[in-house]
Amino acid sequence: MKTSIIKSIFLINIFLFSCVQSEKTEATNELAIINSDPLPSWNDVVSKKEIIAYVHTVTDEDSPNFIPVADRIATFDNDGNLWSEQPAYFQLFFAIDRVKAMADDHPGWKTQQPFKAVLENDMEELKKQGVHGLVELVLATHTGKTIEEFDADVKDWIATAKHPTKNVTYDKLVYQPMLELLQYLQENNFSTYVVSGGGVDFMRAFVSPIYNIPSEQIIGSRIKTKFEYNNGDVKITHLPEIDFNNDKDGKPLNIQKIIGKKPVFSSGNSDGDLAMMQYAASNNYKSFMLYVHHTDSIREWAYGRNSHIGRLDKGLDQANKDGWTVIDMEKDWEVIYPFEMEK
Amino acid sequence: MKTSIIKSIFLINIFLFSCVQSEKTEATNELAIINSDPLPSWNDVVSKKEIIAYVHTVTDEDSPNFIPVADRIATFDNDGNLWSEQPAYFQLFFAIDRVKAMADDHPGWKTQQPFKAVLENDMEELKKQGVHGLVELVLATHTGKTIEEFDADVKDWIATAKHPTKNVTYDKLVYQPMLELLQYLQENNFSTYVVSGGGVDFMRAFVSPIYNIPSEQIIGSRIKTKFEYNNGDVKITHLPEIDFNNDKDGKPLNIQKIIGKKPVFSSGNSDGDLAMMQYAASNNYKSFMLYVHHTDSIREWAYGRNSHIGRLDKGLDQANKDGWTVIDMEKDWEVIYPFEMEK
Repeated sequence: MKTSIIKSIFLINIFLFSCVQSEKTEATNELAIINSDPLPSWNDVVSKKEIIAYVHTVTDEDSPNFIPVADRIATFDNDGNLWSEQPAYFQLFFAIDRVKAMADDHPGWKTQQPFKAVLENDMEELKKQGVHGLVELVLATHTGKTIEEFDADVKDWIATAKHPTKNVTYDKLVYQPMLELLQYLQENNFSTYVVSGGGVDFMRAFVSPIYNIPSEQIIGSRIKTKFEYNNGDVKITHLPEIDFNNDKDGKPLNIQKIIGKKPVFSSGNSDGDLAMMQYAASNNYKSFMLYVHHTDSIREWAYGRNSHIGRLDKGLDQANKDGWTVIDMEKDWEVIYPFEMEK
Repeated sequence: MKTSIIKSIFLINIFLFSCVQSEKTEATNELAIINSDPLPSWNDVVSKKEIIAYVHTVTDEDSPNFIPVADRIATFDNDGNLWSEQPAYFQLFFAIDRVKAMADDHPGWKTQQPFKAVLENDMEELKKQGVHGLVELVLATHTGKTIEEFDADVKDWIATAKHPTKNVTYDKLVYQPMLELLQYLQENNFSTYVVSGGGVDFMRAFVSPIYNIPSEQIIGSRIKTKFEYNNGDVKITHLPEIDFNNDKDGKPLNIQKIIGKKPVFSSGNSDGDLAMMQYAASNNYKSFMLYVHHTDSIREWAYGRNSHIGRLDKGLDQANKDGWTVIDMEKDWEVIYPFEMEK
């Protein structure tokens, strides 16, 4: 039977190939238009040229740098890399809005930190509560619900809540140049993954259609869950306990656990992404490390070396030392947000 | 620009479609040969007919049961479902062989259980050591090495070690009918996943080419790991601590965490797979639950209701009650192992 299958595939290829040959000129011209500029929102800068040169060399079967499709793994941080993260991670605004929505059922929160700070809009006090306070907010607002209920909460929030200064819904604050980069890599048969410190179920509720990345390619921090079965009805519920913090070393560790392959392309914007970049840099295939440096105080935010959120210090040192590509947001990107193009 | 891209794609489709039209009869005939019998090693039995009817209805765009490609998630247990698991899980034989290979460097093992039992080939004592002993063996033989070193250990073992009674390497003891089922689902654009209690890095060392399943679609139990970076050199090392036991409730919990979608097709052979089957059964899409019942004492092994390894008791009750498909291995499979076909 196998012989006949091979013969069939061979015959089908022959006839398709002959069609393609006869119409070759037309097809080549049409493809040339499609491929003319894969990154139109980028200025004509070094970072753009380096990306395109990399994609060309690793997808060219005749190149010594050729990477088989199965190993074209690209990993992207989310906060500050695919969408903005100022003045705080957007997931924190979700938690804050949930605390306010849930406050009537929790009268004790009026006097209990970090909830008191949230209800009194006291951002200074909230900062003082630090990571511990943040974790408490997340556990209080993200747990006790089924995956489906939590998903509905996030979908409702993303459709309605507005960013405090940009005054648009948070999903509008994705970077147009990075959407083009994701699409360019996808068209070149890279498997594009989000690998973020953000919560995996939070991201899955809305990012798939925006990034064209399916849920199985979204990796993030996780809360523990429990499974219940009752006469045909299944419930998976978030428990009030952190399962995995997908940041710093956690990123390559989770990539190894979940993907089982080293990335060849890795993109981030902070020292929290440095281990993931180092992991990609150690790939035997030619790899590409891309840092987004936030330099645009007018259109976005300017921060990096000493910032509280999204600190890029050791990462920038290593990028400079090892010749990794660094995007200067102000100079490299003609457009930052997709809504700028609608004007 | 967008208009010209759409126009280009439209034009390309038109010309390809016209080619396909003109050669339609030839292509249809060739495809008919490919599709003639997707499961040739199965007898003409109910289970086979139910599988084929299911795949037809969920891949037919005009059917009310149609499932979009992105949601065609199929999850397969490994031990006893894709390959044999008697007289013990094959990974235990790997651990035993590793203990013997490592014994010279661990003189204390001669008097220390469970290692003493292994070195004296005392399987009765080893059974008495139970799960605790098993975990100790796994941690002693699977940890302290980098992912790459461990991978090399497993590859070396699978290439040389022989099953104690079948006298072939363990990778020969996969089920031919299940290889055909995997291929059939893959050809119909299902994403096929291994979801096993076995170790994820153990499986990844050799199953991908056998099942045509990439590492990112292999989900299993895990040992904790650590990440080290030293001047360009990256090490991920197994630590002597269990990270996640991918069995029973752990299977749907891990599927939710890693895939983020409910399976529509789920296949297993023991009560350890029951939660995964219940999870698939709760899908809003039409789903398919498939149990392998080991009934062939001559060609394979006969066990189930009361067996120590691979107990299928509650699962069989629920399969009968809910009308899930159960494979009677003796009656349903014309061939069990691929090497039977070489004779």
